[in-house]
Amino acid sequence: MRVLAVDPGLTRCGIGVVDAVRTGRRAAMVGVGVVRTPATDPVEARLLAISEGLETWLDTHRPDVVAVERVFAQANVRSVMGTAQAAGLVLVAAARRGLPVAMHTPSEVKAAVTGDGRAGKEQVTTMVTRILGLDSPPRPADAADALALALCHLWRGGASTRLEAAAHSALVTGRRNAYAEAEAAARRSRRNVVVRSQASSADSRR
Amino acid sequence: MRVLAVDPGLTRCGIGVVDAVRTGRRAAMVGVGVVRTPATDPVEARLLAISEGLETWLDTHRPDVVAVERVFAQANVRSVMGTAQAAGLVLVAAARRGLPVAMHTPSEVKAAVTGDGRAGKEQVTTMVTRILGLDSPPRPADAADALALALCHLWRGGASTRLEAAAHSALVTGRRNAYAEAEAAARRSRRNVVVRSQASSADSRR
Repeated sequence: MRVLAVDPGLTRCGIGVVDAVRTGRRAAMVGVGVVRTPATDPVEARLLAISEGLETWLDTHRPDVVAVERVFAQANVRSVMGTAQAAGLVLVAAARRGLPVAMHTPSEVKAAVTGDGRAGKEQVTTMVTRILGLDSPPRPADAADALALALCHLWRGGASTRLEAAAHSALVTGRRNAYAEAEAAARRSRRNVVVRSQASSADSRR
Repeated sequence: MRVLAVDPGLTRCGIGVVDAVRTGRRAAMVGVGVVRTPATDPVEARLLAISEGLETWLDTHRPDVVAVERVFAQANVRSVMGTAQAAGLVLVAAARRGLPVAMHTPSEVKAAVTGDGRAGKEQVTTMVTRILGLDSPPRPADAADALALALCHLWRGGASTRLEAAAHSALVTGRRNAYAEAEAAARRSRRNVVVRSQASSADSRR
């Protein structure tokens, strides 16, 4: 099972490709990158560049599923529109290839890799680096976010989803009593996710 | 000069194609229609259907320029995201063909065809029907809006843009002293347009 995940954006579109290993509890990075477009270009040229970049990634890595970070409204309306448009291009590219599409919220992604739906960017990057056994943290944060989204997608799939992810996080950190801690963290994160999705308009940062 | 104009939307995407006749003061309708997608379909399937519908229209009518109604934020965030995504697909389709793209606000479109930036849907439909000499009003309103947008694009291009459009409207209505009235209407509409674009977040209806 190969997931291509996109953290959509007009200026930086993070893309991460991850393979499931052993029934989805472990994962291996296949590729990571960012499609950038200059803010000085007309919006149609930027969207075309993103569309072509996505096609190249899809052609190269031939994923089984495409995951997209769900876009929320936020203070900066102009920015959210560009993000929504970039996300739309991902959805169309996936649909054109007959690939299933999944969307996850930023809270779900953070909870999946750190056990906390309100984790900061650095924490997400740190956990992605550990979970995938990378030599150095993926930069910029959009690239790490895309990998976190791919992991989130691999680990979601039922009631035990966040528990599994949190357990894995705990395992990676090498703490003792890891599973019990993970279970508690997952319970907390489930509560957080519920609370945060009700307050979804304040949730996103892009 | 042929304009293909799109009033973007996820449920109904209005498309209108208009040719300029005699240096842009008169215009002839080439085609009008609506791409519809069912609200029960997944968003990626809807966006793909819109993308394919747009490609068919572009292949069939081979316009010189593509006009898109500018999307504003509004109360219904979920709806504006779908609209922004549909607009993004139009922008990419145009850019992929190397066609120039223009965006106009709803106020500019209304002012262009009625002389009043705050005109209602029925007034816009009535004027589009008159200006293009159609036997019956284009339905639904999204189709009429797309034609209005195409006319707006043909007529904009300098300080005299709205004046010309209003003069043409007055001509079509057959009133006496049409030009003087049009000039006054254009002056009013110019003021309206300025005021309305400052209040743009309350401006759009989709």
